[in-house]
Amino acid sequence: MATARTGRRPGPNRTRAAILAAARASFAANGYDATTIRAVARDAGVDAALVHRFFGSKEQLFAAAMELVVSPSELVERLLADGVEGVGERLVHALLTLLDTPVARAPFLALIRSAVSNEQAATMLREFLTREVLGRLAAAAAPDSPELRASLAGSQVVGLAMARYVVRVPPLADADPAAVAAAVGPTIQRYLTGSLHG
Amino acid sequence: MATARTGRRPGPNRTRAAILAAARASFAANGYDATTIRAVARDAGVDAALVHRFFGSKEQLFAAAMELVVSPSELVERLLADGVEGVGERLVHALLTLLDTPVARAPFLALIRSAVSNEQAATMLREFLTREVLGRLAAAAAPDSPELRASLAGSQVVGLAMARYVVRVPPLADADPAAVAAAVGPTIQRYLTGSLHG
Repeated sequence: MATARTGRRPGPNRTRAAILAAARASFAANGYDATTIRAVARDAGVDAALVHRFFGSKEQLFAAAMELVVSPSELVERLLADGVEGVGERLVHALLTLLDTPVARAPFLALIRSAVSNEQAATMLREFLTREVLGRLAAAAAPDSPELRASLAGSQVVGLAMARYVVRVPPLADADPAAVAAAVGPTIQRYLTGSLHG
Repeated sequence: MATARTGRRPGPNRTRAAILAAARASFAANGYDATTIRAVARDAGVDAALVHRFFGSKEQLFAAAMELVVSPSELVERLLADGVEGVGERLVHALLTLLDTPVARAPFLALIRSAVSNEQAATMLREFLTREVLGRLAAAAAPDSPELRASLAGSQVVGLAMARYVVRVPPLADADPAAVAAAVGPTIQRYLTGSLHG
């Protein structure tokens, strides 16, 4: 460990890094649900209030630890703020606009990569998605089987990302985001608010 | 290397294993399109006719090398044999029935895993899917943008597999295959034969 140049406490950048490292370790080892800001603060040797002040909520801490450039729950809430009507197309368009940017795509793909190769990472991602993303979609979905509706919507979103950015299937990989949103949006919309039987 | 008990040529099991090893190496290094049965035979030190006799087509050789229990192109052809109408629901139902079986699921997940973690494996999977699976779906799809239609259908299939078997999102992970087929089938069907604008 490097010795600090002065006798003072570590600066905010180093404290921030220590909190993020502790958060990453806890999310990976304990999953999303069992991780608490209090425990992350303890592991990082800081006060819980400082973690809240630096990062806000647990979800925002997760986003920062995973280097996501956008908080998924905030994105979903913003999209739902205009009402559930048309949210399918807005969601697909926002997602593609975001992930077409390499700096946003890399951490997203890293999350998928770790979930695919490692059981613990899959658990963490499942808990995170269920609590912070799919729960919000389910709350806006039709009252019959809202959780199933949200998970079906999630399946199309993940599949779209896999096909466009990982396997890069033509011509979907290079198709115009607006055209993809027009084609895939109604799928998400039907899962959330339409008939689940076609 | 073990010495053969007799001076005779290697038995069929060992020849088969040598062909499969050569095929795996070539598919991984050169991709699906650039791999030929002739080159695999040469690498395995056998006659190309023998590879054909043991495995059939290049696609069947790929399926055997990846330990897939069903040839994807044969599955798609069988589903399309009854016509394109209703193929979405039949496809989802057949896929879930297959992948709910651990012995069929493991090699499928291994393919996805390698594609997510490794650029060359992603290329191999993309070429394989495009040529052997999506091409057949595109041939049965509506005449406007058939390739885009097939790749959209592929995105929902991959996403469904990711959500149900990798991330295991509830309640989709445990939902009845027939209920999932009823909900997701119309998505595949619309991508293939419906309006791409909702």
